Amino acid sequence: MQVYMDNAATSKQKPEEVFKAIESFFKKINCNPGRGGYGLSLDAGRWVMETRELIGKFFNLKQASQVVFTPNITVALNIALKGLLQRGDHVLISGVEHNAVVRPLTALKKYRGIEVSVIPTSPQGHIESDDARKLIKPNTKMIVCTHASNVMGTLLPIEELGRIAAEHELYFIVDAAQTAGVLPLDFEKLHASVLTFTGHKHLLGPMGIGGFCVKEDVARHMLPLYEGGTGSISDKEEQPDFLPDKFESGTLNTLGIVGLGGAVKYLLQKDLSEVRNRELELTQKLLTGLKQFPNVTVYGPQDEKLQTGTIALNVEGVDNAELCFVLDEQFGIMTRPGLHCAPLAHRTMGTFPEGVLRLSLGHYTTEEEIDYVLESMEKILAVI
Amino acid sequence: MQVYMDNAATSKQKPEEVFKAIESFFKKINCNPGRGGYGLSLDAGRWVMETRELIGKFFNLKQASQVVFTPNITVALNIALKGLLQRGDHVLISGVEHNAVVRPLTALKKYRGIEVSVIPTSPQGHIESDDARKLIKPNTKMIVCTHASNVMGTLLPIEELGRIAAEHELYFIVDAAQTAGVLPLDFEKLHASVLTFTGHKHLLGPMGIGGFCVKEDVARHMLPLYEGGTGSISDKEEQPDFLPDKFESGTLNTLGIVGLGGAVKYLLQKDLSEVRNRELELTQKLLTGLKQFPNVTVYGPQDEKLQTGTIALNVEGVDNAELCFVLDEQFGIMTRPGLHCAPLAHRTMGTFPEGVLRLSLGHYTTEEEIDYVLESMEKILAVI
Repeated sequence: MQVYMDNAATSKQKPEEVFKAIESFFKKINCNPGRGGYGLSLDAGRWVMETRELIGKFFNLKQASQVVFTPNITVALNIALKGLLQRGDHVLISGVEHNAVVRPLTALKKYRGIEVSVIPTSPQGHIESDDARKLIKPNTKMIVCTHASNVMGTLLPIEELGRIAAEHELYFIVDAAQTAGVLPLDFEKLHASVLTFTGHKHLLGPMGIGGFCVKEDVARHMLPLYEGGTGSISDKEEQPDFLPDKFESGTLNTLGIVGLGGAVKYLLQKDLSEVRNRELELTQKLLTGLKQFPNVTVYGPQDEKLQTGTIALNVEGVDNAELCFVLDEQFGIMTRPGLHCAPLAHRTMGTFPEGVLRLSLGHYTTEEEIDYVLESMEKILAVI
Repeated sequence: MQVYMDNAATSKQKPEEVFKAIESFFKKINCNPGRGGYGLSLDAGRWVMETRELIGKFFNLKQASQVVFTPNITVALNIALKGLLQRGDHVLISGVEHNAVVRPLTALKKYRGIEVSVIPTSPQGHIESDDARKLIKPNTKMIVCTHASNVMGTLLPIEELGRIAAEHELYFIVDAAQTAGVLPLDFEKLHASVLTFTGHKHLLGPMGIGGFCVKEDVARHMLPLYEGGTGSISDKEEQPDFLPDKFESGTLNTLGIVGLGGAVKYLLQKDLSEVRNRELELTQKLLTGLKQFPNVTVYGPQDEKLQTGTIALNVEGVDNAELCFVLDEQFGIMTRPGLHCAPLAHRTMGTFPEGVLRLSLGHYTTEEEIDYVLESMEKILAVI
């Protein structure tokens, strides 16, 4: 039996629409969108536009042009941070941010003299929005927060932080890597300046495509991270200043985009609350089972309603990398050990530097798989 | 009949290895390389590593780690330019550079006060390397040059420019977008600091993947454009300083990489001189035919040995966009009109702002297709 429990890294099982779209584009079109004057190139452009519109609909945007494609969410976050922060600016982040946020901020501290404050965060990943409010200074410009911890699944109060950001006229950047495709995200209601997403996790598209949704007035003040050919205003040696071209230079990942289009079409047909309810059931089942083992420590909220289907644990006296290896080798269960590119989160959790074992399920995980994971854990625990 | 003459934008016909690799990875693996501790994630990592090694072999690199993947060549060029140029630096470029070079330099002029000089370039795209030498000043730091014009195909003297750069200890950045996969490129012999490539043109891979080859001592001084999770040294909030991780943050475009791997495997089995010879035959045939039409102006060297299979032309009294439309609508011939994201090249050619019609063939173009293009042009010319 093979059980995939690494959905926080990427979703392995995709709706059939994804590969169908990739195959169809590759075999029937395979031309560069927006680069030629002929029918097939225009068809390619229309397919990209259709995916943009689907994503715009998915996140409830006014204009599809507010959706910008990037190669992954890391680049999307880099664009938002580096495009908006100026020398001496102060930024607030949660204590569970991924290195996709922390590493660019570390570079900006060094090269642009920005200041970063971490909002007090409990070991379970909870923050009080009042604690954020107290940290705001005259040079505070931005709040950056992940919607959910990629290590222990904790959901963060992005609605409240968004309101605080709006009250204080701060930019608010949301990292929805772990939640887009599971929890509803309404860009209009969220008070987010930039909502970043990855295509290949719970949005169920292929790897190599991500992006962001941006408010038009924010985009006007945001500098691009890279410039180049856009297939538009080609008489100009300056980057276009309109969306989405301002932030989309060079040939796009068309296979990634059409694959993501197929996935989002599938998700739009499905009710997202159905996806979330399924995740809730499965997470509850897995949490309940894991909590019965006396020498297993589960981190995070340990309450499915306060988290995603991502669970962090350690077994007393067992190295988590070793546990991961045994689960894979002897039971075919795929998990991720260590620090999950999130040293800050592990410091907050009190699990730095040894890390944890992460099990992350998807809505297509089955009850039988959860049972099998629990039985396998029981067998392992019996012999150590 | 459908004839694809837009290979300078992307190659439409790919070796069957490309789709096979994409399908095989998607259906059998589809895990995130370097992110999990289980067999399938390691398999994904091995597949990425294999492609890196194939590209390293293709460009004759000492170490596969000198190959860095980027979403496209535009981002690769942005990394090289922004990662190496500092305030007040002076850069030399050819007069036929694409906006993938010109637009980031325009931004660097504005935000980092760099200076750019254009090496005198003939309307056919030729430059004398002595003219480059004369422009070198104490603050000159870099020469950037495309290997071939993306508009009229002219080959530029990158070997000579590389020697000049080496003599004057300048960085030398090569844009091989139009030639990688057709002309031999030996990184060790080229005196290039950074050789940038795109995967989806003559390298025959899918869109959404490109990269660069970099000298190790140059990489040490080059700052990343984006930072984030790399699956390595995850205990650190700083970006890794080793290759390739320093420049590869976030989830990679695995489908793009495995597809490109399939394509490069195909090219390595084929003799590259066979590809170039085939291109020479076809280009000569097309050039000879086009030159017979009295009211057609062909730009560039008009000599297949001095250019790629990319040909720029205009028909007296006919708008090139209109010509493109008629070729597509009535004859199924796919071309690209206008400015080709290269206003500088068109200024040099004397075709700004009206542009040209670009026909660009690939080594898989057939003699019959060239005959058909010439017959179709004759029919169009007869009625105007």
